[in-house]
Amino acid sequence: MARVTTQEAIVTKGAAIVHEKGFRGAGLQEILRASGIPKGSFYFYFRNKDEFGLALLEHYWGMIRSLAERFLEDPGAPPLVRLERYMDAYREMFADMGFRRGCPVGNLAQEMSDLNEPFRERISEIYAGMHGLIAKVLEEAQRRGELSPGLDAGKAAWFILDGWEGAIMHMKLSKSGEPLEIFKKMLFECVLKTGA
Amino acid sequence: MARVTTQEAIVTKGAAIVHEKGFRGAGLQEILRASGIPKGSFYFYFRNKDEFGLALLEHYWGMIRSLAERFLEDPGAPPLVRLERYMDAYREMFADMGFRRGCPVGNLAQEMSDLNEPFRERISEIYAGMHGLIAKVLEEAQRRGELSPGLDAGKAAWFILDGWEGAIMHMKLSKSGEPLEIFKKMLFECVLKTGA
Repeated sequence: MARVTTQEAIVTKGAAIVHEKGFRGAGLQEILRASGIPKGSFYFYFRNKDEFGLALLEHYWGMIRSLAERFLEDPGAPPLVRLERYMDAYREMFADMGFRRGCPVGNLAQEMSDLNEPFRERISEIYAGMHGLIAKVLEEAQRRGELSPGLDAGKAAWFILDGWEGAIMHMKLSKSGEPLEIFKKMLFECVLKTGA
Repeated sequence: MARVTTQEAIVTKGAAIVHEKGFRGAGLQEILRASGIPKGSFYFYFRNKDEFGLALLEHYWGMIRSLAERFLEDPGAPPLVRLERYMDAYREMFADMGFRRGCPVGNLAQEMSDLNEPFRERISEIYAGMHGLIAKVLEEAQRRGELSPGLDAGKAAWFILDGWEGAIMHMKLSKSGEPLEIFKKMLFECVLKTGA
């Protein structure tokens, strides 16, 4: 029990620092200081910084899934409304952070894809998971006649995920929510149209 | 003359190393070794690593503009065909790099926006420049009746730029050109439709 708690403390503190500074920019000393644990204890929980990084990815993926559960899988709303609320929930969360930091998974994809193969593989799986969550909503909208059946839901879900990640990157650059708003508006007006 | 040549050599070698490893991940020693110049000479051309980083941004922006001149501003092709060829030219370039590295400006936006205000400001200006190049093409297509006049060209250009940056990020993650192809297909089929 104590073991899990300490390990979780390191991951939670580390997740915030890595989110801010990148994986390589976040020093182990700083993470240890923030978690209030000595270096020796760190190596009790993680073999090395890479293993810690993979634990961070699980932490971020858990956060994404819990937001998806709450908004994308809400049984009380039509699918495209759920997608819109999901995007709004991210916008709110980013606004609370002053439109800094960006998407922790996108950041690590950008930073680590060429440098660390286990990271790249795990981030690819998380991307596939995020894609699946969106594709499922689009397919449900098609079954309900709320989205054109001519749209390729799988491709559209990648278009949405990649575009959203790019808009988040621009948000982080401009320190403003406008890129997210433009993306959402264009998406719903031009791509996700009602109709059989 | 010699001064410009040495400075350019540092920037060219440095640009490749930073493109691969990020700005903070690229050590000054490694850049100096690759350029074949001693440390003292570096400080003859640049006050510090940040000033060097800003010179890199100008280098990247120059590359973007020359590609835009060749494809986006080609007077021999209709505007949307030019946009498609511009995207294809990027895809080719990325394919030659094994779909690694990604967009140097996008990488630095992701890495540096929260950490270095002069970088953030200059990258924002470059983003505005890239946006302007795309918006101009869309407006021309509208004037020629080749794109719906109902589309907001300014917003659509941000949607394209941000989506393309996100697709490049996914390309770098998946080590494949597929995200770029999906983005282009969805864009031309769903957003950039002909018609008055």
